[in-house]
Amino acid sequence: MFNLIHSSTPGRQGEIETEHGNIQTPFFMPVGTTGAMKGLSHKDILDLKSQILLCNTYHLHVQPGDKIINKAGGLHKFIGWEKPILTDSGGYQVFSFGKDGRMKVEKNGVKFKCHIDGRPLFIGPKESIEIQHNLGSDIIMVFDECPPSTASRKNIESAVETTLRWAKKCKMQNEKYKKKNKGKGPLLFGIVQGGLERDLREKCVEELIAIGFDGYALGGLAVGESEKEMLSVVKNITPLLPENSPRYLMGVGMPHQIEACVKMGIDMFDCVLPMRIARHGTIFLSNGKEIRIQNAKYKTDHTVIDESSPSELGRTHLKSYLHHLFKAKERYGETIACSQNLGVVLKTMQDIRSNLITHSL
Amino acid sequence: MFNLIHSSTPGRQGEIETEHGNIQTPFFMPVGTTGAMKGLSHKDILDLKSQILLCNTYHLHVQPGDKIINKAGGLHKFIGWEKPILTDSGGYQVFSFGKDGRMKVEKNGVKFKCHIDGRPLFIGPKESIEIQHNLGSDIIMVFDECPPSTASRKNIESAVETTLRWAKKCKMQNEKYKKKNKGKGPLLFGIVQGGLERDLREKCVEELIAIGFDGYALGGLAVGESEKEMLSVVKNITPLLPENSPRYLMGVGMPHQIEACVKMGIDMFDCVLPMRIARHGTIFLSNGKEIRIQNAKYKTDHTVIDESSPSELGRTHLKSYLHHLFKAKERYGETIACSQNLGVVLKTMQDIRSNLITHSL
Repeated sequence: MFNLIHSSTPGRQGEIETEHGNIQTPFFMPVGTTGAMKGLSHKDILDLKSQILLCNTYHLHVQPGDKIINKAGGLHKFIGWEKPILTDSGGYQVFSFGKDGRMKVEKNGVKFKCHIDGRPLFIGPKESIEIQHNLGSDIIMVFDECPPSTASRKNIESAVETTLRWAKKCKMQNEKYKKKNKGKGPLLFGIVQGGLERDLREKCVEELIAIGFDGYALGGLAVGESEKEMLSVVKNITPLLPENSPRYLMGVGMPHQIEACVKMGIDMFDCVLPMRIARHGTIFLSNGKEIRIQNAKYKTDHTVIDESSPSELGRTHLKSYLHHLFKAKERYGETIACSQNLGVVLKTMQDIRSNLITHSL
Repeated sequence: MFNLIHSSTPGRQGEIETEHGNIQTPFFMPVGTTGAMKGLSHKDILDLKSQILLCNTYHLHVQPGDKIINKAGGLHKFIGWEKPILTDSGGYQVFSFGKDGRMKVEKNGVKFKCHIDGRPLFIGPKESIEIQHNLGSDIIMVFDECPPSTASRKNIESAVETTLRWAKKCKMQNEKYKKKNKGKGPLLFGIVQGGLERDLREKCVEELIAIGFDGYALGGLAVGESEKEMLSVVKNITPLLPENSPRYLMGVGMPHQIEACVKMGIDMFDCVLPMRIARHGTIFLSNGKEIRIQNAKYKTDHTVIDESSPSELGRTHLKSYLHHLFKAKERYGETIACSQNLGVVLKTMQDIRSNLITHSL
């Protein structure tokens, strides 16, 4: 359930109700691919005030397997995370195998080879919803066709057709499970595809709304197009989405992108980039700047990484120490960097929410 | 300063006073080689109730350099650790290069090549004490010659001679710094060498006592000899050490070794083994048993890792989840495993101390 509390030029403020607690929108989701985040512990993520964790359906399906997780009592119990969890559908990962020719799209899903041991696997809308129900996620996604950003209009057109056909199947499958479970179940989100083709995106939105979902995501972005192109899609398509449903921009973003997209009416974000660049030494500061900690000048810079950091590690450790840990390839360096960058992203979201509440008063 | 509070058959209970607080003996020191522990954050180590951190002089000397650390205000400030720090002398690391013929022992120290960039380096007693003073450690060690456990009696005899000659130099050098600093300074420990040759060990003890140190360490153990041989040296040599000084068994041990050696009068321990095996999936349980978490039977074992674990991670996470994290090569698996093993070792020490206090009442 989504309660829209306030909507204005600077953005929308609301609340998503889930079985594992309410989430204040707009929000950012840290990505814990196989049920854990790289570089940080669950406690670190909670200390930085994350409201939710995103996990990857494909990865959990192949290792350890969603049936094993189901027997443990679901993903929350298995990984020891009590707050809400969103899972993607696996579509993005499965279609990324297309590049190597290890994937074949069929009517009811995709045949491909497991990235770990090469065993043949098949995931379609039915399987994806089944896996996500086995995991017991709070928010689940439809299984969509995610074409590369370089795809032709013809390919994107076909991907939209497939996405819509599979979206219907996902909805039906989800309703079956909900019926079994006395109406209870996760929120199911539709995904808008259509690349940079505005008319295809518009058509996709229209038909997804006709099917009816608990929330709507913009997919197929942050996959190689320019930032300007990405923002243009968000600007044109977001106003077409139902006002009373949460809107999720998949795979975005960096703090400045989040700020821009909240203003255009987006409620939910996820992005691995802030963590990936942290692990390679690019550190966000809470004043909006970035530093490259491996730069020689930090060798003797004995000032604190970020005095007003939302991360305790960033607030207490020295730049020279972090520089040293990266030089010495000590993992604690990654932990500090990831905590700092995730902290800054989550604090950006908190500030945006506070600002929206002030506006609504 | 060391206050011996109680001594009896089950062991000794005491307290070491340092500028960064008092340490209750007997105790175990986690090893944070370059100023951070593998797999754990400083906060994790503190939460598990460690009283002290051990850092390696050689590693900090070559990266980032002890002069840089000194300018940051010392090692405590540089790494953000407020409790006591013990540094080794660098002798062990420098002599380990001997195997590759990249090291040459001279009268006043050792010429060798840096393990990172191959630049020529020289460390002797004078340099080691200077580096350790630059770091600002609370407990520092003499620069000793640490021969391999397979060395001939002749080589061990010569190593004892060198160790004693350098121990005198270390003492003199340390006194110089203390004089400059109005009598204040770290505790300096002598190191007993002599391999498995009882008479050489006895001679070394006698001459070290004649020089006079704040504490005495048994070195050159846990370097390839059998456990029985190690325990035999501890049994024979410990009673010869001054009762009113702390006694440090270097490089030992595993929980059962710690229990045995406390009974023989040892006060201080360090060992990388519990952490190294944790990173490879061998998990200590608080009931004294060990499990190999990568064993297939843990794939579906949805019970808690260790219900009465001193580690919160070990107490809350499932065996099946830890198994999965190791399979998926997720670093959070290492964090959980290291927290569990260090927790068990530190709890063993706490239990030993409580038991000694009960005995003394």
